[in-house]
Amino acid sequence: MTDAAVRPKKPATDKRTPAGGAPTAAHSAEEAHEARIRIPAVTDLLLGTWADTRREARQLIKDPAFWRIEGQPMAEHRERVLGQLRLLAENGGSRRAFPKEYGGLGDNGANLAGFMDLVLADPSLQIKSGVQWGLFGSAIHQLGTKKHHDMWLRDVISLDLPGAFAMTETGHGSDVAAIGTTATYDADAEEFVIHTPFRGAWKDYLGNAALHGRAATVFAQLITGGVNYGVHCFFVPLRDENGAFLPGVGGEDDGAKGGLNGIDNGRLHFDHVRIPRENLLNRYGDVAADGSYSSEIPSPGRRFFTMLGALVQGRVCLDGASTTATALALHIAVTYANQRRQFDSGSGTDEVVLLDYGKHQRRLLPRVAQVYAQFFANDELVRKFDGIFGGTNDTSEEREDLETLAAALKPLSTWNALDTIQECREACGGSGYLAENRLVGLHQDLDVYATFEGDNNVLLQLVGKRLLSDYAKQFRGADAAKLAKYAVGQTAGKVFHGAGLRQLGQAVADFGSPARSVELGLRDEQQHELLAGRVEQMISDIAGRMRPAAKASPVEAAAIFNANQSELIEAARAHGELLQWEAFSDAVNAVDDEGTTQVLTWLRDLFGLTLIEKHLAWHLINGRLSTQRAATVTRYIDRLCLRLRPHAQDLVDAFGFEPEHVRAPIASGAERARQDEAREYYAALAASGEAPVSEKKLRKK
Amino acid sequence: MTDAAVRPKKPATDKRTPAGGAPTAAHSAEEAHEARIRIPAVTDLLLGTWADTRREARQLIKDPAFWRIEGQPMAEHRERVLGQLRLLAENGGSRRAFPKEYGGLGDNGANLAGFMDLVLADPSLQIKSGVQWGLFGSAIHQLGTKKHHDMWLRDVISLDLPGAFAMTETGHGSDVAAIGTTATYDADAEEFVIHTPFRGAWKDYLGNAALHGRAATVFAQLITGGVNYGVHCFFVPLRDENGAFLPGVGGEDDGAKGGLNGIDNGRLHFDHVRIPRENLLNRYGDVAADGSYSSEIPSPGRRFFTMLGALVQGRVCLDGASTTATALALHIAVTYANQRRQFDSGSGTDEVVLLDYGKHQRRLLPRVAQVYAQFFANDELVRKFDGIFGGTNDTSEEREDLETLAAALKPLSTWNALDTIQECREACGGSGYLAENRLVGLHQDLDVYATFEGDNNVLLQLVGKRLLSDYAKQFRGADAAKLAKYAVGQTAGKVFHGAGLRQLGQAVADFGSPARSVELGLRDEQQHELLAGRVEQMISDIAGRMRPAAKASPVEAAAIFNANQSELIEAARAHGELLQWEAFSDAVNAVDDEGTTQVLTWLRDLFGLTLIEKHLAWHLINGRLSTQRAATVTRYIDRLCLRLRPHAQDLVDAFGFEPEHVRAPIASGAERARQDEAREYYAALAASGEAPVSEKKLRKK
Repeated sequence: MTDAAVRPKKPATDKRTPAGGAPTAAHSAEEAHEARIRIPAVTDLLLGTWADTRREARQLIKDPAFWRIEGQPMAEHRERVLGQLRLLAENGGSRRAFPKEYGGLGDNGANLAGFMDLVLADPSLQIKSGVQWGLFGSAIHQLGTKKHHDMWLRDVISLDLPGAFAMTETGHGSDVAAIGTTATYDADAEEFVIHTPFRGAWKDYLGNAALHGRAATVFAQLITGGVNYGVHCFFVPLRDENGAFLPGVGGEDDGAKGGLNGIDNGRLHFDHVRIPRENLLNRYGDVAADGSYSSEIPSPGRRFFTMLGALVQGRVCLDGASTTATALALHIAVTYANQRRQFDSGSGTDEVVLLDYGKHQRRLLPRVAQVYAQFFANDELVRKFDGIFGGTNDTSEEREDLETLAAALKPLSTWNALDTIQECREACGGSGYLAENRLVGLHQDLDVYATFEGDNNVLLQLVGKRLLSDYAKQFRGADAAKLAKYAVGQTAGKVFHGAGLRQLGQAVADFGSPARSVELGLRDEQQHELLAGRVEQMISDIAGRMRPAAKASPVEAAAIFNANQSELIEAARAHGELLQWEAFSDAVNAVDDEGTTQVLTWLRDLFGLTLIEKHLAWHLINGRLSTQRAATVTRYIDRLCLRLRPHAQDLVDAFGFEPEHVRAPIASGAERARQDEAREYYAALAASGEAPVSEKKLRKK
Repeated sequence: MTDAAVRPKKPATDKRTPAGGAPTAAHSAEEAHEARIRIPAVTDLLLGTWADTRREARQLIKDPAFWRIEGQPMAEHRERVLGQLRLLAENGGSRRAFPKEYGGLGDNGANLAGFMDLVLADPSLQIKSGVQWGLFGSAIHQLGTKKHHDMWLRDVISLDLPGAFAMTETGHGSDVAAIGTTATYDADAEEFVIHTPFRGAWKDYLGNAALHGRAATVFAQLITGGVNYGVHCFFVPLRDENGAFLPGVGGEDDGAKGGLNGIDNGRLHFDHVRIPRENLLNRYGDVAADGSYSSEIPSPGRRFFTMLGALVQGRVCLDGASTTATALALHIAVTYANQRRQFDSGSGTDEVVLLDYGKHQRRLLPRVAQVYAQFFANDELVRKFDGIFGGTNDTSEEREDLETLAAALKPLSTWNALDTIQECREACGGSGYLAENRLVGLHQDLDVYATFEGDNNVLLQLVGKRLLSDYAKQFRGADAAKLAKYAVGQTAGKVFHGAGLRQLGQAVADFGSPARSVELGLRDEQQHELLAGRVEQMISDIAGRMRPAAKASPVEAAAIFNANQSELIEAARAHGELLQWEAFSDAVNAVDDEGTTQVLTWLRDLFGLTLIEKHLAWHLINGRLSTQRAATVTRYIDRLCLRLRPHAQDLVDAFGFEPEHVRAPIASGAERARQDEAREYYAALAASGEAPVSEKKLRKK
C-alpha cells in the first residue's frame, strides 16, 4: 500500500475554505459564503451532555492497539479483541456503570457515552464490550441483588469473569417469552436444573459463548411446584479454568459471520445442569428454599417486561454507535468527494470535484443532515436513560417512555447506518471497496445492528402499539358526545385532517418569487406540522380500521392487525422521524452564534424537507400539500444542497474525528496529493513544448 | 455446525401444497387455491433462450470443488479460485465465445449464459472468469486481429496465459478517455514505450494483477509522431515463468476488499516498458513501422466508443449474474419464511409462519416479482448481444441500442441485488447473518457490481443522454409550425402530458366494487401507459429546461446540465424499469398454460404496481393519477401479496436451484425439522399430564 494508515488528513488551513486547501469550483449560492459554522462549538453540540467522557474514550482509542486490522483472520481477530477488552478494563473503561462499592463510578449516562465511540476503533470491540459489561454484567447488576453483586461484579468489571448473555435461542429471537430452556426447581437439593429440551431451544448467536465465556446469564422458564412462572435469568458457570465445558454444558461455534468476526459468537445447550438456588438473579422474582415463588410484581406480563426493560441500555448504545459509525463514513466520503476529480468541467481545463456534481450533493448532503439529527436525538435518549438509571427520575412512566423512545430511534439509526455507509461506499467507487478505506468493514459489522437487540421491524411494531394505545386513551372516560363526534369524523375520514391540519404547508399565498414563498411555506413550523400531522393521522386511520378487532375472535383480530401491520410500522417510523426532527430543532434553537445557527437551520431544513419528500405521495393523497407546493419540495431541496455544499467539509469536520479515528487513506489527503501531482505533470509538459497534440484538436484545425 | 452443508431442501411432495410439506396457515384469497404455476415450464421460461447451456453450467458446479468455503482466508481463497478456473477450462467452460479455429465454439449468447450462473458457486469464480475470458481474452479477441488471436487465444482459453485487464487507473475510473498511461511509439526501435507518468496513472483494482497475471491488456494514450491518438489497447507481458515482474513493471496488492476476496486485485505501473509494435491490438487503429497512424474510423470519439463498446459483454453478464444471485437470496429467504414460526397467532396454539405476516409478504413478494422481470429482460439483452456479436444482426444502430440497453439494465439489477439480498438477510434475522447461510457473502461479493464495469450512476447518465438525443431527433427537420407548437406546449408544460396521457389510469369509472374498478384501472395497459408516460414526460421536461444550454458558454451549459443531472438519472432509471416491465409482459403473453398465466400476471401486476407506488408522488404531481386512485395503489398491492402468498414457494422453486446450488442450512428443511421437534415435545409433555401450569392461566382461574 502506498498510503500510510494514518497521516494528517489535510494541511492546517483557514477553516473558511471548505475543502481545507485549494478552493473548490465556484458556487452559485452567494449567501453561503457569508455564514460559517464555528466548528469547535458544533463539535461540542454533537458530542452532547457527556462530551468529556466521549473525548476520553476517543483519546484512549488513538492507541493503535485498539484498531481493527483489516483482513485479519477470524481466530486472530477474536484474540485481539479479547486483549482490547482487557486493555479497556485496565484503563478504567469498563467500570462507569457499576456501583462505587465494586470499583465502579455509578455514572450511567457517561457509561453509554464512553462505549458508543469504541465503534471507531473496531465495531467488534464495541459489541464484545457490550456483551461483557452491557449485557452479561448488566444482567447481574440489574436483575441480581447484593449477594450476586458481591460475588461477581468485581470480576465482571476486571474481565476476570468473561461471560455470555444467553437469551436468544435458535428457535426464538424476537419472542423471548416463548423460549424453550427450562430452569426447574428441585426443592430437595435446593438447586435449579437448567435444561435444553430440544434443538430449537439451544442458545444461539451469543458473544463470548464459542470461546471466552466462563459463565452465562441464562434466560429460562422458571418452573417450581409444577407452575411455570415465566422467563427469569440465572447465573450458570460454563467453563473450567482451562476453558473446557463443565459437565452437562455443550456448545458450538457459530463460525464466520457477515461481520463482527472479532467476537466469538456461539451456541450453548444444557443437559440437566444443576446450579444453586442462589444463582437465580432474583431482583424481580425469587424462589424460597421450599420452592415457593414470590415477586414484587404480581402480573406475569408486567414482570417480564420490567426485566427486559432493565436491559434497555443496549438499544440506547446501538443508536449512538450507529450514529458515530455513520458520521465516520460521511467524513470519509465527503472528504474524498471534496478532493477527487473526474471528467472535464466544460471549461476545458480542470476536472470537476465530485462534490460539485448535483447528483453527488444529493447523495451525500441529506445524509449529513440525517446524522446530525441522530446525534441530537441520541443525546436526549441517553439523558432520559441516565435520569432513570441514575435514580433522579425513575418512574414507571419514564421507563415506558424510555423504552418507546429507544424502540423508535434504534431502528432508524441502525438502518440509516447501512443506507448511508453503502451510499458512501459507492460514492467512493473502487477505492470505497478496498478494506483499507473502512466503508465495507463498517457496513459488514453494522449489518446485524438492524436485527439484534430487538429486530427493527418488531421494535417499530412495539412503538406503533404504544401510539395506538396513547390514541385510545384520549377517548377513555370521554363523554358520549365526544365519542359520537369522533365516530362521525372517523367515518368521514376527517377527525385529524379536517380544516386545521389540511391547509398546512399551503396557507402562505403563492405570490412573488416562487422560491421565497416555498421557503415561507415549508419552514420550521410547517415542517413540524406536516411531520407531526402525518403521525397523528396515520395512527387515527389505523385505529379506525382496527376498531372491529375489539369485538372479533382472536384469530379474526389477528387477521385485522395483520392487514394493518405494514402501515403501523410505517407510522412508528414516522414517529421516530418526528422525534429526530424535534431534537434537531431544539439543538439549533440552543445555538447562539449567528453563522452556526444559519447553517444548521439550512441543514435542519434539508432534513425536514427530505423526510417530506420521502413521504410526498402520502401528503398529497391526504390533502396536506397541494400538488403545486409538493412540486416545489424537490427544487427546494436542490437549492438547500447548493447552499450547504460550501459547508460540507466543515460539517463533517465538526464530528471531531482525528486521523487515528479516520484511518482511511482516501480521506487522508493522499487523493489531493495525487491530483496535484497529475496537474503539475501536465502543466510542466505543456510548458516544455513537448506535449503531444491531441488528434481531436488537430482535426479541428 | 449441526446442519450439513447440503441436504434435500424438502421432502418430495405434491406441488400444490405451497410450503412443500404441512400446509401453511389459512389464507383468505380463495381464488388463489385454484390457479397454480407449472414449475418446470416456468423454470424453462426463466432460464431463457440458452437454457441448455445454463443447465450445463449448473450441473458442472454441483461439484463441491467449485463451492466457496465461507470464512476461508484470503490467500487460500485466491488459490482455490485459480484452481477452479483451471477446472472450468478443463471442462470446456471457457471456450464458448472464442472462434472455432482456436478450440472455441463461436457461440456468444451461450457463452454469457454459461458464465452468469457461476455466481451460484462463488461470485469470485464468476468474476475472475470474467476477468480472464470476458475482459483480458475478449480484449485480445475483439480489439486484436488474426496475428494476436494466433499468438494468444489458445493459451487464454486454456489458462496457460492468465492475464489482467488494465484499463482503470487510481486517478481515472469512469472517465477512461482521461487515463494517464502513455504508449509512445519509437519508430527507430519499432516499439511502443509503455509508461506511467505519475501516481494517479497507476493501473488499479485489476483482477489477476496482484499474483496470477502473466500479461495484461493495457489501455494507454497512443502517441506517435507527436500526436496523441487517444486511448488504445496494448498487450504487455507482466511476469516471467517464476511469477516475478519483468523489468520496468511494478505493482502492489490491493489487499483485502469488501468481498470477492478469491480474486487477486492489484495495481500495476510501468517505467518505460518496451513492447513490439505488433503488440498494439490494432483492429480499430494501427501504427505502421514508420510511425504513421491509420484507422477505419476517422472520428476519434467514435473510434473510442467503438472500442469500449466491443467490451460490452461484461455489463450483460453482470446483469444476468446479479439476477441469479438475487434469485438465490430470495429462494433462501422465502423457503425459510415458509417454515420459520414466531409469535402466537392469537389462536393460542400454533405460532405464525413468517410469510403469513403482512409485513413479511410486503418485504419479500414484490422483490420476487422484480427478479422475474430481470430474468426476462436479461434474456432479451443476451439475445441482442448474440445477434450482434454472432454477426446475424451487427449494425451500428444495433450496437448503440445494445449499449444503451446494457447501461439501463445493469444498474437496476446490480442495485436491486444489494437491496434484495440485504432485505433477505434481515428477514432471516440472526441466522441470516451467519456466513453459512450465504446471504452476507452474496451481499459482500456483489457490492462492487454497482460501481465496476461502469459506475451505475454514470451508466444511467449515459442512458439519459441517449433518451434526450432521441427526443431531440423528433424535431430534427420538423417544420416551423411543429416546432412552434412544441415551444408553446412546452411553456405550458403540456406537450406530453396534455389531454391524451393526463387521463390515463383514471379513465375507468370508479363505480361498483372499489376493488374491481381499481384493478380495471390499473391493469396491463394502464400500467404501461403510466410507466411509459413518466419516461416521456421526464425527458421532455428536462429537455425543455436544458434548451438554454445550447446557446450558453461551456461552463454555463455544464451548470445547466448539472442542475438537471439528478433527474436525468432518475428518468433513465424509469426507462430501465419500463424495459423490465415490458420484458415481463412479453414473457407472460407467451405462456399458454392458464394457471401459470394467471399467477404470472398477478406477479407482473405486483411488479408494475410496485413501480407505480414507488413513484406515486410523481404521478400525482403530474396529474397522471387522481389522489383517489393513487390511494388505492397500496391496497391493491396488499391484495396482490395476499393472492400470491400461496404461490411464493412455487415461484422461488421455479428458479430451478438444486441443493448443491443453495447450500444454506436454513433453506434445507432443518428449520422445519426443528419446529416439528419442538411441537412434538410440547404435545408429548401435554399428553403426559406433567406439563407445568402457566402462572398466567393459574391467575385467571
